[in-house]
Amino acid sequence: MNPRLDLIRRRCADLDADAALLTFLPHVRWAVGFTGSNGVLVVTPDEAHFVTDGRYATQAEAEVQGAEVHVPGYRLFEHVAEAELLAGAETVLLQGDHLPFTEVERLRQLLQEVRFLPVGGLLDEDVAAKTEEEIARVRAAQAVTDEVFAAILPFIGPGVSERDLAAEIVYQHLKRGCERMAFEPIVASGLRGALPHARPTTKTLRPGELVVLDFGGVLDGYCADMTRTVAVGDPGEEARGVYQVVLDAQQAALDAAAAGRTGRDLDQAARQVIEAAGLGEHFPHSLGHGVGLEAHEWPRLSSRVEDTLPAGATVTVEPGVYLPERFGVRIEDLVVLREGGCENLTASTKELLVL
Amino acid sequence: MNPRLDLIRRRCADLDADAALLTFLPHVRWAVGFTGSNGVLVVTPDEAHFVTDGRYATQAEAEVQGAEVHVPGYRLFEHVAEAELLAGAETVLLQGDHLPFTEVERLRQLLQEVRFLPVGGLLDEDVAAKTEEEIARVRAAQAVTDEVFAAILPFIGPGVSERDLAAEIVYQHLKRGCERMAFEPIVASGLRGALPHARPTTKTLRPGELVVLDFGGVLDGYCADMTRTVAVGDPGEEARGVYQVVLDAQQAALDAAAAGRTGRDLDQAARQVIEAAGLGEHFPHSLGHGVGLEAHEWPRLSSRVEDTLPAGATVTVEPGVYLPERFGVRIEDLVVLREGGCENLTASTKELLVL
Repeated sequence: MNPRLDLIRRRCADLDADAALLTFLPHVRWAVGFTGSNGVLVVTPDEAHFVTDGRYATQAEAEVQGAEVHVPGYRLFEHVAEAELLAGAETVLLQGDHLPFTEVERLRQLLQEVRFLPVGGLLDEDVAAKTEEEIARVRAAQAVTDEVFAAILPFIGPGVSERDLAAEIVYQHLKRGCERMAFEPIVASGLRGALPHARPTTKTLRPGELVVLDFGGVLDGYCADMTRTVAVGDPGEEARGVYQVVLDAQQAALDAAAAGRTGRDLDQAARQVIEAAGLGEHFPHSLGHGVGLEAHEWPRLSSRVEDTLPAGATVTVEPGVYLPERFGVRIEDLVVLREGGCENLTASTKELLVL
Repeated sequence: MNPRLDLIRRRCADLDADAALLTFLPHVRWAVGFTGSNGVLVVTPDEAHFVTDGRYATQAEAEVQGAEVHVPGYRLFEHVAEAELLAGAETVLLQGDHLPFTEVERLRQLLQEVRFLPVGGLLDEDVAAKTEEEIARVRAAQAVTDEVFAAILPFIGPGVSERDLAAEIVYQHLKRGCERMAFEPIVASGLRGALPHARPTTKTLRPGELVVLDFGGVLDGYCADMTRTVAVGDPGEEARGVYQVVLDAQQAALDAAAAGRTGRDLDQAARQVIEAAGLGEHFPHSLGHGVGLEAHEWPRLSSRVEDTLPAGATVTVEPGVYLPERFGVRIEDLVVLREGGCENLTASTKELLVL
């Protein structure tokens, strides 16, 4: 028995559908454990079928839990039709926020007797509310990323380029067993730190600069995500002041973080501190986002989102202040939302490190 | 003037549409040069508008060629509606093979007076037929990847793990200026080489094993892709024989490669050699694929695809033979299709290296 398949069946019933055809791979992995790059999961009231291609025959047999494995070749949707895996189903849910329009059309063409209902957000909340086993995996990924932060500190100093520092960050993750990075590391020094999504360049670090370091590894499928801002020598009083505002804002959000609150609540907790310091216009992004099998997943922690945050969600808390053409500060932890509070998975110090 | 915008307008006219709303970022980059992670391009008969969010305000102004830049905040589609960027258009093309179903629905809701027509493959052939400037960028990316192949050879030997070798491959690319890898490197040794999509593990290389190495960097947006199979000490006569078959098959496909032929022609040229050696059932994938701003792009070089290959397309030629539970051999070059032949962008030797 696979309880996640029963959860999918309940979501079908909620939407008056008989079955679901799942194509979004992080959610397919969540449901049945398949880690490959091509596969479709069909869940009907009494059956579950997983369809993949020949490259993954051995792997699917080893990984997939609770669904019958089919390996017809490359034409997965055609096999769903020909093998009548949806026989008897009238209304079938699709993950319309992840499936391209033309793929929905192709399914409708192949299975004209079925009413396909593409919906958004189908399993987002279920996937976000992580079990302790999943939380342990996110914790393990973040532990590696914290280790890497400590390991790269000796490389940080005047003359090293953003690019070489980013290469070192990636290398240290891979050597510790990460399969890849959750996203391209951000290493943004001096005035480049004022660009929230700067890519590492050949620019070298200079004395007195702040450096924003944002990175996370992927370990056994689960992502880490952290940001620290460090100084290359004394950054001066103003930078120290902004750093303290961001740190206070982050602490306010951490204090507010708990299951049952909204992303808006947490965003506001941090934003009020930054606004009170007169820096509100320089915090142009939202507070954070869910992290798990995807680097960015539901929920968003944003002033525009009212969703209630479920227990077990692993989310980032990452306020930032960016002074154009001058410098930027961002501090980000990865936390688990619990009843009455949150557990911080990020161990690295948040004192301003002057290197 | 931006000639690519005119090409888009011609595609609109071909399909009796007035305008196009492009959302697939590799194609948006191709059209106007934007390299960020969020943006929408609107092309009407007389105007072009590019819409992005606040993170990319500075970058978009610097990069975008031939379109007016709009930075309304995060709600890009809403801005297309509110600023009436599609005013006067009746039928508007969408990239239906890249846009999720629910996003098409959202656009239709926002702009009810417009007839949105989501189509597949809208710009695939135009993007594939690369200019000499683009070919030079693919060549430069492949040159770095060839350099890395030479640089990692000294690391290959008994006792080194697949994972550490993969980490070295990534590190060497990033140190040479690649922004990221085009895909996670494959390092598959011994019997793991028989899995065409094996991920690097902690398994260490052993004397007599073949090792399949498949990797490519991304330099300035353009991807490289190569595979070499090397031996750790003498692999024995059978492995040498299979290696020669794959090498001959690859050469046959390279000899057949030219603009105006089909992917099927090339696939058949290689497949016949492998079949003649009695190994046809062990070549379970297609011959290759386009490479450019994406690691995998149109065209596919497959027995099932009849598309004619355009001049300027950069494609992989990568036959393989995989003997289950024993070993695998794959050899892959990246080539440019020209009139009457192809230009090989991959410089590394294809002699069997015994390390």
